[in-house]
Amino acid sequence: MTGIRARRTADVPELVEQATAGNARAVGRLISLVEDASPALRQVMQLLAPRAGHARVIGLTGSPGVGKSTSTSALVSAYRRRGKRVGVLAVDPSSPFSGGALLGDRVRMQDHATDDGVFIRSMASRGHLGGLSWATPQALRVLSAAGCDIVLIETVGVGQAEVEVASLADTTLVLLAPGMGDGIQAAKAGILEVADLFVVNKADRDGADQVVRDLRYMQSLGMQAPSQAKVDGHWVAPIVKTVAAKGEGADEVVDRIEEHGVWLASTGLLETRRRQRAADEVEAIALTVLRSRIGDLRGGDALDRLAGRVVAGEVDPYAAADELVAGVTQ
Amino acid sequence: MTGIRARRTADVPELVEQATAGNARAVGRLISLVEDASPALRQVMQLLAPRAGHARVIGLTGSPGVGKSTSTSALVSAYRRRGKRVGVLAVDPSSPFSGGALLGDRVRMQDHATDDGVFIRSMASRGHLGGLSWATPQALRVLSAAGCDIVLIETVGVGQAEVEVASLADTTLVLLAPGMGDGIQAAKAGILEVADLFVVNKADRDGADQVVRDLRYMQSLGMQAPSQAKVDGHWVAPIVKTVAAKGEGADEVVDRIEEHGVWLASTGLLETRRRQRAADEVEAIALTVLRSRIGDLRGGDALDRLAGRVVAGEVDPYAAADELVAGVTQ
Repeated sequence: MTGIRARRTADVPELVEQATAGNARAVGRLISLVEDASPALRQVMQLLAPRAGHARVIGLTGSPGVGKSTSTSALVSAYRRRGKRVGVLAVDPSSPFSGGALLGDRVRMQDHATDDGVFIRSMASRGHLGGLSWATPQALRVLSAAGCDIVLIETVGVGQAEVEVASLADTTLVLLAPGMGDGIQAAKAGILEVADLFVVNKADRDGADQVVRDLRYMQSLGMQAPSQAKVDGHWVAPIVKTVAAKGEGADEVVDRIEEHGVWLASTGLLETRRRQRAADEVEAIALTVLRSRIGDLRGGDALDRLAGRVVAGEVDPYAAADELVAGVTQ
Repeated sequence: MTGIRARRTADVPELVEQATAGNARAVGRLISLVEDASPALRQVMQLLAPRAGHARVIGLTGSPGVGKSTSTSALVSAYRRRGKRVGVLAVDPSSPFSGGALLGDRVRMQDHATDDGVFIRSMASRGHLGGLSWATPQALRVLSAAGCDIVLIETVGVGQAEVEVASLADTTLVLLAPGMGDGIQAAKAGILEVADLFVVNKADRDGADQVVRDLRYMQSLGMQAPSQAKVDGHWVAPIVKTVAAKGEGADEVVDRIEEHGVWLASTGLLETRRRQRAADEVEAIALTVLRSRIGDLRGGDALDRLAGRVVAGEVDPYAAADELVAGVTQ
């Protein structure tokens, strides 16, 4: 495998050239390098830096069952009707073991399979540490350089990833649907607090209006983003009803996303969010570098010996960590 | 607040003394220090190191709705009948915003509220990075030093936390229940792969036998823990049916946990797992130390300036990370 991988990635500059020309196969291979945390990434990112595009990054989050994939597909269609090139990144950080999403690209988004203005990609982030924050910005950079005007990031997982996606996107859509559980559950996951736009999907079902009322009520209580409100000033997340399976409401969602983009740019927040994102990315890579130095110590038994002393009660974990850090930074 | 906190933690040695004597209030305050990532922890852990107990650590994981809290409560009762002192740690890593579990200690485990052989504690891990792996072992150390024979760790969150808990426990129980979604969903979350013991709760409901059959079938396919199988040799996770709300099956679960413990000890895996856990803990603390050094750079604008250059395409994120690491380790 290593040999094949090495041969495949031999000509990185050519691969980057093809990807920036919009070659879907080359784009896919670069994202595979990101997914694999390939050593070749360093060169890839160096080559991509001056060609960075300026894709608008839209995050989609919400509990399983609200219709994220269907909504993503409907948004892709809406953007395509406006002549935009669209990238879709379905991120699954929930499975460190599988090494890939169970639902692969093949069963997703079949409507767009033959459209060369659309890149669709599932991505698993294999490492624990900083998985999503490490890999996703690099995949975004690839899609942006490949000429995408819009990149939709859809989290497949649940839990913390739903919140994290907000830190990666310019605009975060929180999807809800009738009958998906109570408001407290949603509030608990923190996803209401990260919404720039609420999408109430399956709006042809009973209870959709109640979901809208609940959201308005929570907004009126100021439950939405106490921290964000301070930063963002006066943006109150609009609520849009959709029936994604029929494409209903997708155009309105895109309109609201555009409005949010105009607002972000006018307040300077677009630049702030992107700088913040780059800072998170650089920090995540730096931590990976430092972690690999710790890993070298681990391979060399230093950490295991320290751990043995901790288990025996001979040293406390902080003192052991001090020894480890001294080894890394000496 | 800082003043109050400082005053409260002024006499760390006395607090540690009280906690190791089994004072529930002192135990709670030490765990609050862990939750707050207090600077006083360093001294706490130093004082606790020579008094480390040897609590058996049992992880409980499973999707929301399978009855984790009820099962935990039933297991506490079963252990109390055997005269064991029990600690319960309900970890909620899913909510970085809330700063605490919504369901506090008060509404949990009311059966054991007046039993001084039981410590019950919810804990939110506030930081993103290494939250669970950083805080939980230290809370375990507190409970162990306080004389707990058994510590049950229950994850309140979903997703990656369900898998992570396995790396913190000697024995991991995966809870399932009839009607909670298909097997693929469970396999996707990776939780089947970490099970030392399967508990099929709500076994008085339709479909319980089907869940057992599905599990046996997946075990026969070797879907359980390809990586673990190599390490663990011949342990095949037993499947126990329970009705936790009535306490049915809890004693059998405890018996199976004991058997797993005997097996772990006989193979040397108990020591291996504990060493591994200590290594993870030391590594997590070391990364926190390094991260705080990066944070100092962030506060000092170095990272923000680097991020601005990344956004402008003047430098790639890897080169920026190199600069950052050089600043940290110089």
